[in-house]
Amino acid sequence: MTLLNNETMNMTPISSLGEFGLIEKLTKDIKCKNKSTIKGIGDDCAVLDIGKDFSLISTDMLVEGVHFDLAYSPLKHLGYKSIVVNVSDICAMNGKATHVTVSIAASNRFSVEALEELYLGINLACTKYNVDLIGGDTTSSMSGLMISVSVYGSVSKKNIAYRSGAKVNDLLVVTGDLGAAYLGLQLLKREKEIFKSNPSVQPDLSGNDYSLQRQLKPEAAVKYTKILNDLKITPTSMIDISDGLSSEALHIATSSKVGIRIHEEKIPVDYTVMNLANEFNLNPIFCALSGGEDYELLFSISQKDYEKIKKDPDFTIVGYVTDASEGNKFVANDGSVHDLTAQGWDGMKEHE
Amino acid sequence: MTLLNNETMNMTPISSLGEFGLIEKLTKDIKCKNKSTIKGIGDDCAVLDIGKDFSLISTDMLVEGVHFDLAYSPLKHLGYKSIVVNVSDICAMNGKATHVTVSIAASNRFSVEALEELYLGINLACTKYNVDLIGGDTTSSMSGLMISVSVYGSVSKKNIAYRSGAKVNDLLVVTGDLGAAYLGLQLLKREKEIFKSNPSVQPDLSGNDYSLQRQLKPEAAVKYTKILNDLKITPTSMIDISDGLSSEALHIATSSKVGIRIHEEKIPVDYTVMNLANEFNLNPIFCALSGGEDYELLFSISQKDYEKIKKDPDFTIVGYVTDASEGNKFVANDGSVHDLTAQGWDGMKEHE
Repeated sequence: MTLLNNETMNMTPISSLGEFGLIEKLTKDIKCKNKSTIKGIGDDCAVLDIGKDFSLISTDMLVEGVHFDLAYSPLKHLGYKSIVVNVSDICAMNGKATHVTVSIAASNRFSVEALEELYLGINLACTKYNVDLIGGDTTSSMSGLMISVSVYGSVSKKNIAYRSGAKVNDLLVVTGDLGAAYLGLQLLKREKEIFKSNPSVQPDLSGNDYSLQRQLKPEAAVKYTKILNDLKITPTSMIDISDGLSSEALHIATSSKVGIRIHEEKIPVDYTVMNLANEFNLNPIFCALSGGEDYELLFSISQKDYEKIKKDPDFTIVGYVTDASEGNKFVANDGSVHDLTAQGWDGMKEHE
Repeated sequence: MTLLNNETMNMTPISSLGEFGLIEKLTKDIKCKNKSTIKGIGDDCAVLDIGKDFSLISTDMLVEGVHFDLAYSPLKHLGYKSIVVNVSDICAMNGKATHVTVSIAASNRFSVEALEELYLGINLACTKYNVDLIGGDTTSSMSGLMISVSVYGSVSKKNIAYRSGAKVNDLLVVTGDLGAAYLGLQLLKREKEIFKSNPSVQPDLSGNDYSLQRQLKPEAAVKYTKILNDLKITPTSMIDISDGLSSEALHIATSSKVGIRIHEEKIPVDYTVMNLANEFNLNPIFCALSGGEDYELLFSISQKDYEKIKKDPDFTIVGYVTDASEGNKFVANDGSVHDLTAQGWDGMKEHE
């Protein structure tokens, strides 16, 4: 046995693979052995069969400097958001979140009062979503703040919605509206820069409450899964929109082995978001497609459910499911058809 | 709304409370609302009632520079250990681990190959303990490596062992032996210092395989919970020994509202550990009481189970349970009686 020097190992930069490529490489040899494991890695949640309903499990890690900046994310909001993004993963399986564990690593820069603020937000979200905080770990870190949340929930076996069930001719539906959280982030970043260059200038965030709230204090889509349940609609596939509409649509296409066609004119964007996008010289549809953090749901339904949903303003049909051979397409307002990519659509630059 | 400056908040250093004090302060207002929550924070695992058996959930976070040093922890061992310490928490409830999620935050100092090494160890432990890796999160960090693992398991309702069930006159039992992991760490730290001052000197770790293995590649106590099950013994209380025997005994005493009496002469320490302790001029009993990371089990049994266990060398009776009014005591080899503290025992310095 010798002491290791990790620096001498072969080096392939993690960034060369990207998050999904890295996960695939690290987990490709994993075989599930327990009969109770219905679904392991590869959907919004793992699915276990240990009771009357399916049990759902998901986990998310938030790292300071990567996922949040405490210059403009109040700790209470951050605590709230850390629960919401996990509850959102349970919604994406058409389930109901019931329990969370929260682990925190914090450097000595953080006081007890700061962590109490964080937990105020965590408790607020747990109360709002009727979720029990049942455990965790609290430790020090060498620098910065890390929050790791795991969430548990359940869904009746007949109502579970995987990413993999979309069928040709199904309708693609989005809840709420998109792009706001990304623009809220751009606004906060801009005001931080102004504040840094002149701390006496008060940040001007007026008139943009909606985008700011969507970024700082998002909500999970529990109200929409409840409506779907009341309407007796079980989505054929579902995913939450954490990375932007196009990326999530491609996940459904890949998992379901289908093609996806999204129409630009159908994508729901709030008018205040339109205005803010103009201010930043950004295409609002680009913000919707690849901005992320909206925590709305993208799902597919059978055409027979169209009548139940068509008059509900909570839901917008943004496209439909095609045969895999037709690829994944974005139909622009001018009728031109483009390849849909994780970053938006091919030829986006020329199109703008 | 204004941009926050967290530095201006009131500051109580986290270190002034300690880990358990901090957790208590942060979670004191938490009320569990779901009927399925049998036990929330305050034991080795949370306990949920969602099936035929109780479901068990626990989570642990390992932070570079706080919980491990990559100068002497090979990444494969670290991955293995990150699973084992979580499986150990399930053992501590007398349960069987079935599933884990693993979240990793790594700085750009880490290559894909380095993370593959880590996952080799994770997979090895999952295979050994028949646990399915069902999810996780992989993200970048600003510095260092963080590993957050959550574990799920189950235990039949009649066999669950909480910290809180110890009764007066119960026997206190320890599995295996104690102190080795702590001495393994001292050895690795010493060799790191020597290596730093003169990199041409090869570390001398010979003859200390046992202590090194206990530190670098610990095992969870699944073999002991199986024996207990075969012997039809359900511990009246149980905890895993992650922080040292004295700290864990005090947890049982507090949770069970009893007193604890531990006899120095009974504490099991391996002879190679005795020798290594002498080399470091450390009291081996101190290493057992407050060293930690042995991941053995401490449990209490009714006296009626004494006959079943007395000849099994896997188990050592280290003391017994008293009325709370008698306090928590350490009976030294010379017959003197001392207060048991989380750090060992009162008057330890004079006693050494």
